[in-house]
Amino acid sequence: MPGEIFRHHQRVIYAQCTIGNHVYHSRYLDILEAARGEFMRALGYPLLRLQEENLIFPVVEARIRYRAPARYDDELVIEVWIKNATRIRLTVAARVVSPEGKIYVEAETDHVSTSIDEKPKRMPQELLDACERFSAIATD
Amino acid sequence: MPGEIFRHHQRVIYAQCTIGNHVYHSRYLDILEAARGEFMRALGYPLLRLQEENLIFPVVEARIRYRAPARYDDELVIEVWIKNATRIRLTVAARVVSPEGKIYVEAETDHVSTSIDEKPKRMPQELLDACERFSAIATD
Amino acid sequence: MPGEIFRHHQRVIYAQCTIGNHVYHSRYLDILEAARGEFMRALGYPLLRLQEENLIFPVVEARIRYRAPARYDDELVIEVWIKNATRIRLTVAARVVSPEGKIYVEAETDHVSTSIDEKPKRMPQELLDACERFSAIATD
Amino acid sequence: MPGEIFRHHQRVIYAQCTIGNHVYHSRYLDILEAARGEFMRALGYPLLRLQEENLIFPVVEARIRYRAPARYDDELVIEVWIKNATRIRLTVAARVVSPEGKIYVEAETDHVSTSIDEKPKRMPQELLDACERFSAIATD
Repeated sequence: MPGEIFRHHQRVIYAQCTIGNHVYHSRYLDILEAARGEFMRALGYPLLRLQEENLIFPVVEARIRYRAPARYDDELVIEVWIKNATRIRLTVAARVVSPEGKIYVEAETDHVSTSIDEKPKRMPQELLDACERFSAIATD
Repeated sequence: MPGEIFRHHQRVIYAQCTIGNHVYHSRYLDILEAARGEFMRALGYPLLRLQEENLIFPVVEARIRYRAPARYDDELVIEVWIKNATRIRLTVAARVVSPEGKIYVEAETDHVSTSIDEKPKRMPQELLDACERFSAIATD
Repeated sequence: MPGEIFRHHQRVIYAQCTIGNHVYHSRYLDILEAARGEFMRALGYPLLRLQEENLIFPVVEARIRYRAPARYDDELVIEVWIKNATRIRLTVAARVVSPEGKIYVEAETDHVSTSIDEKPKRMPQELLDACERFSAIATD
Repeated sequence: MPGEIFRHHQRVIYAQCTIGNHVYHSRYLDILEAARGEFMRALGYPLLRLQEENLIFPVVEARIRYRAPARYDDELVIEVWIKNATRIRLTVAARVVSPEGKIYVEAETDHVSTSIDEKPKRMPQELLDACERFSAIATD
């Protein structure tokens, strides 16, 4: 089981909502990106620095389950952890929950490790090691 | 096998792109929504009319595979068909391809049939029947 | 007075709407970008080709008046013309209206002519000449 | 002159950027909305509560000057103050700057005070009074 979970916070704004007063489904991918960026910073590997070192992690697959609608001004807690990691591929798991633990969204994104011109490129072993701390088992 | 495939067209604009000159991954969900809306219109069931009749189809799950980056001003052909349909749940399959058939994205979205206040509500049998024509098998 | 007006069409989708069932105010800038892109294509100067020739037109100022809310599935007609043009600066005027002529939005965007690395660069005289046809006076 | 300035912070993510590595121009309106929402909360009048009391502030005009491009992972400081206020109309001024004070964007948005069904409705005098503290003169 466990390992740690990284948490990022965000408030829902009108720009993210649609008719019926709930967050539009594609906006969660933007919210997850923000959380992953802060996760990588917490890990000691901000994406901007990696990008300057010619290493990026494009999303190759995303799977998202919408469990309950989040609404305007709701406080979102985005929980992030590593589901699977090798030097060429990462699967990042995430949940968007309320501060009380109500689940809005569960998601996984698969990323490959490439150079900026999108050629496969192995990530440093140190980065992989840093991921270990957050290699949690999802509590489903 | 087949059945028909509905096709919708769209040009990539700067608002949809990100650094590295490609469509940002969450924008495809917006693009797919536009295509599904036109698909439903072609089926004879525009979503606006269904909504006025208190029937909506919220996305409960999305699965997206990013196969190749689409770039600014690329012409996108969004192919839509029905993978699975019952009176309470639809799975819509889609591919985003170039006019020459290069695959950018493959996706499936699962939708439930509900009233506007998000209670389960069966869709009309006629709508289900209309879907039949597009109940194609994906050619993977 | 007049000159011609270029017209682009678009349907409102859920991704563009917010609570209260109307188009979220920032989405109009995306809609205007799409219309300007097609306007430039109609002029014979697609932005992609200009960009490949190291010429871009970043927005330096935008002024938008929201006159009436457009709603889901509304058909938008985006009218575009040139308000002012020199070889280093363009002011593009636009209106978003319904097919019946109801005005949703009036806007002007000021653009400078630069190289890709954002240095001032004069646009070709032929492009300026091509603009003339659409150098209409707004009927306010 | 002065009065106080409210400050909100945000990091640029890929979802907000476009080709050429800068924030896409319409995204600033989303960023400004987030900042105004927090400003109203700081004022003691969260928009959600006002909305529940049938009072909203739709944008009727926006004017934005783009002074310099903000880039991925830049820290944005959004400065907000009141330029003009009556019980039926607010003009909110804002600047987006770097922590070092480099100006990315200057903007003003005009808002009217209405009920949810978009009929004119006067805001409470107490809200107007609360605005006073932030009624700064822009240093242009």
